[in-house]
Amino acid sequence: MMNLILNMADHGFTICAFNRTVSKVDRFLENEAKGKSIVGAHSTEEFVSKLKSPRRIMLLVQAGKAVDDWIETLLPLLEKGDIIIDGGNSHFPDSNRRTRYLNQKGIRFVGSGVSGGEEGARYGPSIMPGGNEEAWPYIKDIFQSISAKSSGEACCEWVGDEGAGHYVKMVHNGIEYGDMQLICEAYDIMKRGLGLSNKEIGDILTKWNKGVLDSFLIEITRDIMYFNDDDGTPLVEKILDKAGQKGTGKWTAVNAFDLGMPVTLIAEAVFARCLSSIKDERTEASEKLKFVGNSQTFEGNKEQFLDNLEQALYASKIVSYAQGFMLMQEAAKEYNWKLNKPSIALMWRGGCIIRSVFLKDITSAYRKNPDLKNLLFDDFFNEAIHKAQPGWRDVVSKAVLLGIPTPAFATALSWFDGYRTKNLPANLLQAQRDYFGAHTFRIKPESANEKYPEGKDIHVNWTGRGGNVSASTYQA
Amino acid sequence: MMNLILNMADHGFTICAFNRTVSKVDRFLENEAKGKSIVGAHSTEEFVSKLKSPRRIMLLVQAGKAVDDWIETLLPLLEKGDIIIDGGNSHFPDSNRRTRYLNQKGIRFVGSGVSGGEEGARYGPSIMPGGNEEAWPYIKDIFQSISAKSSGEACCEWVGDEGAGHYVKMVHNGIEYGDMQLICEAYDIMKRGLGLSNKEIGDILTKWNKGVLDSFLIEITRDIMYFNDDDGTPLVEKILDKAGQKGTGKWTAVNAFDLGMPVTLIAEAVFARCLSSIKDERTEASEKLKFVGNSQTFEGNKEQFLDNLEQALYASKIVSYAQGFMLMQEAAKEYNWKLNKPSIALMWRGGCIIRSVFLKDITSAYRKNPDLKNLLFDDFFNEAIHKAQPGWRDVVSKAVLLGIPTPAFATALSWFDGYRTKNLPANLLQAQRDYFGAHTFRIKPESANEKYPEGKDIHVNWTGRGGNVSASTYQA
Repeated sequence: MMNLILNMADHGFTICAFNRTVSKVDRFLENEAKGKSIVGAHSTEEFVSKLKSPRRIMLLVQAGKAVDDWIETLLPLLEKGDIIIDGGNSHFPDSNRRTRYLNQKGIRFVGSGVSGGEEGARYGPSIMPGGNEEAWPYIKDIFQSISAKSSGEACCEWVGDEGAGHYVKMVHNGIEYGDMQLICEAYDIMKRGLGLSNKEIGDILTKWNKGVLDSFLIEITRDIMYFNDDDGTPLVEKILDKAGQKGTGKWTAVNAFDLGMPVTLIAEAVFARCLSSIKDERTEASEKLKFVGNSQTFEGNKEQFLDNLEQALYASKIVSYAQGFMLMQEAAKEYNWKLNKPSIALMWRGGCIIRSVFLKDITSAYRKNPDLKNLLFDDFFNEAIHKAQPGWRDVVSKAVLLGIPTPAFATALSWFDGYRTKNLPANLLQAQRDYFGAHTFRIKPESANEKYPEGKDIHVNWTGRGGNVSASTYQA
Repeated sequence: MMNLILNMADHGFTICAFNRTVSKVDRFLENEAKGKSIVGAHSTEEFVSKLKSPRRIMLLVQAGKAVDDWIETLLPLLEKGDIIIDGGNSHFPDSNRRTRYLNQKGIRFVGSGVSGGEEGARYGPSIMPGGNEEAWPYIKDIFQSISAKSSGEACCEWVGDEGAGHYVKMVHNGIEYGDMQLICEAYDIMKRGLGLSNKEIGDILTKWNKGVLDSFLIEITRDIMYFNDDDGTPLVEKILDKAGQKGTGKWTAVNAFDLGMPVTLIAEAVFARCLSSIKDERTEASEKLKFVGNSQTFEGNKEQFLDNLEQALYASKIVSYAQGFMLMQEAAKEYNWKLNKPSIALMWRGGCIIRSVFLKDITSAYRKNPDLKNLLFDDFFNEAIHKAQPGWRDVVSKAVLLGIPTPAFATALSWFDGYRTKNLPANLLQAQRDYFGAHTFRIKPESANEKYPEGKDIHVNWTGRGGNVSASTYQA
């Protein structure tokens, strides 16, 4: 919170800071804020009275009840046209609700995703504002000044109505879960499959960070590989393998189910964290469930395999982002938002955890064609994923034989192979549903005839035994 | 609905039938119900007045608002101690709510899952009742009489408090989604990978149906493979590959996320249906995204591979049920239900869509040890999954190389390999989270020392640059 205020002050804005714990305000003014264009307030009333109209108030409090409480506290003190900005990690349905609620009261609400951690907040975060668009002209200058820049462009644009800003931030976080899981799987393969040391893995990551995978997360993973404890051994190996989570990845996965979009990689990444967290049970299972197969260590050309691994990571990442943008596209339709895809890619380009060279290519793809149906249909990514395919298949198939879990790599490839398949086995599934539940099916247009016309719900008596099943309303 | 009534009458119970469309009641009484112990009513008042105390009223209406509406209609006409049973596919939180609401009014509510389609309803469904346990003695005899029997035992037992019955039915349906997806993947591999005809696939299924996979779904898939259209070609190949769904699989997956349990196979099965449903986009993708790899058709020993495929299907199915029971175990904890695992397995043993020999083995496993922590720890399944492993790995790795999507097979194997791994790469994930967000980590007990004690939340300055939160110099 303090960092974002300091960032604003550095860009020439005058800010009034307030915290319910008044001593915190004083301490901040006497220390970090000293000599800057920052004033303080010791009560909500004083705070509000010090702001000029229309008031622009940014809440930097925990998502949930605290946001609603603050809104209620502020409401009686505000005037029509004032602006309340929620800069926390709120769930987008809450931001939908708050936008509507405050609009009725004449107050303009903005729900804004902010990513980049403390250092991002201080020197340039990625900012994703949405809500009441009337507020945008009043905050655009501040937000775009303090945000990260990518090739001179601000990593902040108006996202869309109501909870659209927090929605895009949620998907960002889901994709972050996916990116992290993919890197973990690559690390596991290098460590257990290839038997590389952390130093060797760090060297590989150094190399990858100069190519298509160049990104903040690869960079910090490299640092982590090189980071030794006092005894000269890698600290990361001593860290307990129980992953924590704050819920935004889960929100993304649940939303994918709600919208019926197969965002498989993020879902698997969230489940991988869940599986990691039941360490006691896994420890017991490791005694009882043994590897059965040829070998648990890789035999073959390691250099070639490492190149394949880079391609596997790259291809899986492309799939994950393609899935993420498909989800946002569907959300825009479902919630009636105008989401600007090139802007979203640009906002993620700098300042945030998933920032990467990769997002520059995504920005280009959507700038070239804002209506691009799928990222994989863009020439650049189309070529990339075709080039990556043989290595990707090699890595997933070898990991399966070596007994190393690759839920994210594998689901990405399964999804890719399913997505590019004109005729999936769901024809059988529809036959099964019709057989046991009379759920009916439709006929492929190319197979339609008088008996089975196109577009008609058809039921067949599969058993030839007759009976009432055809008239069923059974819901399976 | 009619079928369940006829089933009750056949077992010597006298039933009063009512439907808001009174002509339906008359038609039913004059036809199917003729000569049976079934009477009708032409108004709600008449219906209620014809029942003896405590009244036992079973609603067979669509889940959702219709159930609440009927409850409100009936309430003024009922007396304390009367019983309302919801036999539809309600979402378990609704059944939680209704149990509590009606309990306050002195009415005993039962939410009961019923599975088996129309034929099941008529001749013996699987019935999963939960809710207000005081109702159980009054309905036990009817329910257990009309339910399916397995080796003489009724496939109906009291499941647990509030929405527990509908919860178990929901998981049943999720598992059904998984079973169907697994069979579809096996069919796809046999069809596209091995180039088998539907007749040949039917013959394989006939064989499988005599072994460990013996089940209703394998049986009907066999029938479907043999079922030809008038032109002598298999009808299933003409069916449009867009899978429908009614939402219970999705509920299971979302609940898995809510409870933090990695129920990956059901989630992938639901996503596979979602992917199938965007057929237009897949058709476009099939033009733009080509297979790159060695070969799309299997080369090698087909007989051996088919045996491996059987093992892959079996092992994946074991994982799916293990995941499902883990979920129910967690739900019991979370919602404070006493779920009886041997009874659940027995209820699914007969009458319902997932009925199989397999569930006999699960029943045995939980009868032998009702507190079994995981199905994979049972001797029978432990041995089975070890035996199946080499074939399972072979099938998943080959499918990956052939370009045939196997989201369910692959996630099952990844989960298995993750579950049996003591040290997952989540240590790196925790390091990353601490690096960019100061989320802290814990230390492995075996690596704990004075500097890094066990059980303490630790933060490290990864960059060595100082400050409370470390971050990197990455330039976007």
